[in-house]
Amino acid sequence: MTAHVPTHWRNLLADFPDLQSGTSDTLHDSKRLSADLSYLPKMPLSLGRQSRDTENRYHRIPEEVLALYRLYRPTPLRRARNFEQRINTGARIYYKFEGTNISGSHKLNSAIAQGYYYKKAGVEHVVTGTGAGQWGTAIAYACAHFGLTCTIFMPSVSFRQKPQRKTMMELFGASVYESPSEITDLGRKIRAESPNKLGSLAIATGEALELVGQTNKTQFAVGSGENHVLLHQTIIGEEAKWQLEQLGEWPDIIYACMGAGSNFAGATFPFMRDERGRPRPDCVAAEPMACPKITKGVYAYTETDFSGTTPIAKMMTLGSAYEAPGIHAGGLRYHGTSPFLSSLYQMGMFRGLALPQRQVFDVATDFAKAEGVLPAPESAHAICAAAQELGGKAEPRTCLINISGMGYHDLAGYAAFADGSLDDGILSDDEIAKSLAQLQGAQALV
Amino acid sequence: MTAHVPTHWRNLLADFPDLQSGTSDTLHDSKRLSADLSYLPKMPLSLGRQSRDTENRYHRIPEEVLALYRLYRPTPLRRARNFEQRINTGARIYYKFEGTNISGSHKLNSAIAQGYYYKKAGVEHVVTGTGAGQWGTAIAYACAHFGLTCTIFMPSVSFRQKPQRKTMMELFGASVYESPSEITDLGRKIRAESPNKLGSLAIATGEALELVGQTNKTQFAVGSGENHVLLHQTIIGEEAKWQLEQLGEWPDIIYACMGAGSNFAGATFPFMRDERGRPRPDCVAAEPMACPKITKGVYAYTETDFSGTTPIAKMMTLGSAYEAPGIHAGGLRYHGTSPFLSSLYQMGMFRGLALPQRQVFDVATDFAKAEGVLPAPESAHAICAAAQELGGKAEPRTCLINISGMGYHDLAGYAAFADGSLDDGILSDDEIAKSLAQLQGAQALV
Repeated sequence: MTAHVPTHWRNLLADFPDLQSGTSDTLHDSKRLSADLSYLPKMPLSLGRQSRDTENRYHRIPEEVLALYRLYRPTPLRRARNFEQRINTGARIYYKFEGTNISGSHKLNSAIAQGYYYKKAGVEHVVTGTGAGQWGTAIAYACAHFGLTCTIFMPSVSFRQKPQRKTMMELFGASVYESPSEITDLGRKIRAESPNKLGSLAIATGEALELVGQTNKTQFAVGSGENHVLLHQTIIGEEAKWQLEQLGEWPDIIYACMGAGSNFAGATFPFMRDERGRPRPDCVAAEPMACPKITKGVYAYTETDFSGTTPIAKMMTLGSAYEAPGIHAGGLRYHGTSPFLSSLYQMGMFRGLALPQRQVFDVATDFAKAEGVLPAPESAHAICAAAQELGGKAEPRTCLINISGMGYHDLAGYAAFADGSLDDGILSDDEIAKSLAQLQGAQALV
Repeated sequence: MTAHVPTHWRNLLADFPDLQSGTSDTLHDSKRLSADLSYLPKMPLSLGRQSRDTENRYHRIPEEVLALYRLYRPTPLRRARNFEQRINTGARIYYKFEGTNISGSHKLNSAIAQGYYYKKAGVEHVVTGTGAGQWGTAIAYACAHFGLTCTIFMPSVSFRQKPQRKTMMELFGASVYESPSEITDLGRKIRAESPNKLGSLAIATGEALELVGQTNKTQFAVGSGENHVLLHQTIIGEEAKWQLEQLGEWPDIIYACMGAGSNFAGATFPFMRDERGRPRPDCVAAEPMACPKITKGVYAYTETDFSGTTPIAKMMTLGSAYEAPGIHAGGLRYHGTSPFLSSLYQMGMFRGLALPQRQVFDVATDFAKAEGVLPAPESAHAICAAAQELGGKAEPRTCLINISGMGYHDLAGYAAFADGSLDDGILSDDEIAKSLAQLQGAQALV
């Protein structure tokens, strides 16, 4: 009766070695472009190797990491029978719920791994930016566990919407700043130019990067987008695969929300190239209309943060200057998505679907009543996409939804939806075009 | 690999039939005293029978209730190895975590059962009082599921400390009032006398009772204290017993917090009189020094609410006029504990331990870091009691802690602890004596 927790992460990079050797210019070029950057060599070699390994399809999870995984894994995989009835579908909908750990989201899967590798590499102080606070909470917990200090920047809009997140991060001993902050040059500059800035993950990341190098024991940790983060998150899909196999199921379609891509990759990678040759599911990346980098963005070089100090990378993006409306799904406000995922998108390995905020909260509320799980607004995008596509259809497909996090810290959003004060958080096509034009201008410099 | 969820509740009343037949005057007398009360006959017969059954040691759980239990059960039982190290104990500490369901606490176990039985009895509208909001959230969810409307009164102090609870209850369609409220005679009377009243569960309950009888389809549901509620909660202990058996363990000692008694009873009853004759564990009821009904109360007749309309019952109590300090463990502010549990206490079946608020939050913070579980302040009393008694002791005992709920809605309390603004919430012995004197005076009327 011991519960099954996978012992290996799935490295999808090994299935696409050409991406590194020139047939795609994405990773190749971003590697070249980032080669000179002083902060990268300070990333632990272990993580750097994970990010570039095109040989091993599986990486063994260190025992210290597994021991912490076992505090909250396996996470539940459940059939959403009540919800199926509610949306009147013939599909069998299973959901994987990553919100049961103390950080409240899947982010802990990578935070624990990164805490372990940073500690092993002799790092003492970790700095980072967090979107809605899920990553910040996770890395703060991991740092507390491994005896590292931690400084976190959080976009102003999320900082104000979700005060409990700050308490959680501080509970684990982290220092938390509203971004743009007064403690970095970048933050002060942006505040001087525009005092009411909502903030963004790109700005928060830029602020964190500014602190790197203050001491040679300080390093930057990233919560999504990078290949090693995607790798760590494959624990989700590996576990779901095993759980579905116990039920004799294989998914025809997978829904996961898409920010910078870590929960989407984690849920889908183990299914995309199956060892036993089973068919690749139809993988759907659910994104907010407030930040439609897949459905309305372009595949182009852009900065990964707002400071201009990080490597530029080719990805599906709206441009690093894009500032999304202050929707409650703060984790989906990032301007682009992972370079690796972007190249997979170019190859047709998945598709995108953009959703308006009110529809997302409407479905989330229904799901909470039906299944007794309160999804984070980010994760609710995946549920909403499934409801939109499967609702009212009799076809008996097998569907997997990844619910990446829980919504207890997002009740202000639920309350706003209930009292009618929530908007759809949609920017006009004109405004998106403006950001893209700025981006196209910048391409000339590459 | 189907998960094990018990199919029966454990009825400990059947092990103590004498309690009903006169050797103890508790149930006998409270039954006599309540016989005239108009609201009691309106309680569904099914629940009334459960409350009085001294014959069947097990009650089969209805299939409709089990189906909802299976949405979140079995709940985790885990070994707290990191915490054991942190408190330097030779004990093996297991914890059962009831905070993983959408209501965030064990209360859902009875809410689902009651929603089912009320619906079946033709009730359309449920009214209730809630302490910290756990019961309110649970009954609101259950009412939404069974198509019942729901009105909830919540003590002012908790209403203000935990605004997310209101959002959760409203998410499920309930009407929520800050108590004392303006919509009942009792509420208006108390507000006129003392406008800054913190409120209490006894007052909130009194307000709810006032609404009963407004229509003949309106009924009062109770979240703790009554025998049928204790019965429903035994799913916790039955499941824990099975889980411990899989590990070859039997607890020497069990810790659970004690409000009106439902999680304490739920965790301990299945172990108190074992079918296979295994020894009764040392059962410890952890209570706040703010409301020490076990350790400083008396065994006496008192009203179960503040309105004087409910039956008086003999219990361990500080008197129904007792108003506990506004500690964050709102669920432990009730003035007494269940009559059945009180009589078991008189028989020496368990003991009490009172703890100050700051020590509780200190241990809770440690536990969160060590085990990745954020306990509700109520449940943290159980952990704190275990740490106080087992910390620094080498003895290799097996310990079970029931963590009845999660603390995401209690982060204001954690923040107050972190910034040093939290007090211990202790009333002086003089103040307790004053309430007890008032109670003794009332005994003369019985």
